[in-house]
Amino acid sequence: MRALFFDGTLKQIEDVPLPRLAPDEVLIRTRSAGICNTDLELIRGMYGFCGVPGHEFCGEVVDGPQSLLGKRVAGEINISCGECRMCRPGMTSQCLARRTMGIHDYPGVFADFLRLPLRNLHIVPEGVSDEAAVFTEPLAAALQVTEAVHIRPGTPVLVIGAGKLGLLIAQVLHLTGAVVSVVVRHEKQTRLLRGWGITALRVDELESQYFPVVVEVSGAASGLETALRLVRSRGTVVLKSTFHGKPQVDMTQVAVREIAIVGSRCGPFAPAIQLLEQGLVDVNSLIEGSYALQDGLQAFERAALPGTLKILFRFSRNDTDPAAVGA
Amino acid sequence: MRALFFDGTLKQIEDVPLPRLAPDEVLIRTRSAGICNTDLELIRGMYGFCGVPGHEFCGEVVDGPQSLLGKRVAGEINISCGECRMCRPGMTSQCLARRTMGIHDYPGVFADFLRLPLRNLHIVPEGVSDEAAVFTEPLAAALQVTEAVHIRPGTPVLVIGAGKLGLLIAQVLHLTGAVVSVVVRHEKQTRLLRGWGITALRVDELESQYFPVVVEVSGAASGLETALRLVRSRGTVVLKSTFHGKPQVDMTQVAVREIAIVGSRCGPFAPAIQLLEQGLVDVNSLIEGSYALQDGLQAFERAALPGTLKILFRFSRNDTDPAAVGA
Repeated sequence: MRALFFDGTLKQIEDVPLPRLAPDEVLIRTRSAGICNTDLELIRGMYGFCGVPGHEFCGEVVDGPQSLLGKRVAGEINISCGECRMCRPGMTSQCLARRTMGIHDYPGVFADFLRLPLRNLHIVPEGVSDEAAVFTEPLAAALQVTEAVHIRPGTPVLVIGAGKLGLLIAQVLHLTGAVVSVVVRHEKQTRLLRGWGITALRVDELESQYFPVVVEVSGAASGLETALRLVRSRGTVVLKSTFHGKPQVDMTQVAVREIAIVGSRCGPFAPAIQLLEQGLVDVNSLIEGSYALQDGLQAFERAALPGTLKILFRFSRNDTDPAAVGA
Repeated sequence: MRALFFDGTLKQIEDVPLPRLAPDEVLIRTRSAGICNTDLELIRGMYGFCGVPGHEFCGEVVDGPQSLLGKRVAGEINISCGECRMCRPGMTSQCLARRTMGIHDYPGVFADFLRLPLRNLHIVPEGVSDEAAVFTEPLAAALQVTEAVHIRPGTPVLVIGAGKLGLLIAQVLHLTGAVVSVVVRHEKQTRLLRGWGITALRVDELESQYFPVVVEVSGAASGLETALRLVRSRGTVVLKSTFHGKPQVDMTQVAVREIAIVGSRCGPFAPAIQLLEQGLVDVNSLIEGSYALQDGLQAFERAALPGTLKILFRFSRNDTDPAAVGA
């Protein structure tokens, strides 16, 4: 089968063997996949990654339990052991021995076929397109904000970082009745946000120490610094960003102003699918381009341009017929 | 009156005028006072402090409402406006316009007399000695840990930093039924902790990613790094430390392991006094030396030695007779 592969440089490979399934795993033909900022970081060297990247997908089960064959699925990205002190109380996404699809020790989805444990799969309902289903994973990550922090209706919440994930988070928060503002740098973001009824502002329009909740999703140390300046004393900064190296952080301010910084990562798939099915979150407006896998390098180049929103891969049936691709 | 004064160097001054009272303020004769780590930081240059330091005290009301005259009091250190968006919902210790006794824009307690707004005062009960009452403020700061974070009985909690405040925090946590361990470096700390039934360990005896709650009170960037290594994923680091400059922090780990860092500062006085009155917290064992104000520089030198616990100032009646001190 075909796959994108990173081993210091990103390349396309035509003759990758089909995934071999462990007893609990299912084989899935990829139908659509999305490039996430984490993917861009990985091919810049984060985590010393080597392998097939990609973890946002919609696919069709081609080898697995009879009841699932032909079904469209999305899949959770953490492959957990089920036995450690994080798994036992149900925090499987924080499994101490976890592998993470397309990120750590488990092949990703930028390939004609992928494998995942059965327990990681979620059926995609009829009304949700392949393209929308690709957003299940990042939308779940957005919902992890409200999973981790109790945000009361009417609370002023600021989102710093209006990229792909930031725009999903803003929409999820808006649904709760929070009063959401988003720091923007591009006209396109402003247009989208205002279309959804969400306030878009430049950072210099904001009052210091005002917001009870700030979501930091800029991926930049300067974004975290801004978050700490704008959050109210006793307020909460939800940290969705990862960073190059270790940023310098004004931890004295955190202690003295009694700020809480709450890290947030993967979230719940079922409510994400529910929001997609009900059309409560606009993901289609976030799609900026759609590429065939053989144009993978161009797709990554496009995705890396500042201000680019979601870039998808589409896998046509012909592309991925096992006979046609020599698998 | 006499006072210690810092203006780049710490000095003793004999002829400081008696405090002038604002309409809501009360005049207090200092009976006993304690040197806190913050005081040591201030005279090393933190916050560009200039003035009379000190904020831990027990004193006697000498000018104020009739009902308070002659009464022994402890006092909250934040002088708040009562009107800002932090004060209105009752978060007066985080007042946006606050002054802080002995720390910011308000004279401290290393002086024969001090002033405070009436609303800041708490009566010290009969059974609590002057020396024990000095611990009201740091014990309240220790209680701010359980005020901010829900620590369930039986929870393994680690305290990093077994100084004056760390030893109070360990005792407060121990009272909740938490399973408390403290990282120690000095034999004296080990002896005290074991006497209270609390586990004392060296940092190399501890398992990574184990503790659901870690309290960081070491005041060192390395302590925060250790806290992030030892806290469980989805766990909480309570940050009591302030730092020189801005430490480098592994914020990627915070996001990916979904750690919460919760800053914590001043706490509630009433429960602190209750614990002191009931003898539930051992403060007497923390007292290492007691000095007259005229020996203030030696007292500060002693307090700054590594591993030193609480150094007090005692004010004998003769010392502070207004006539005798020329006030």
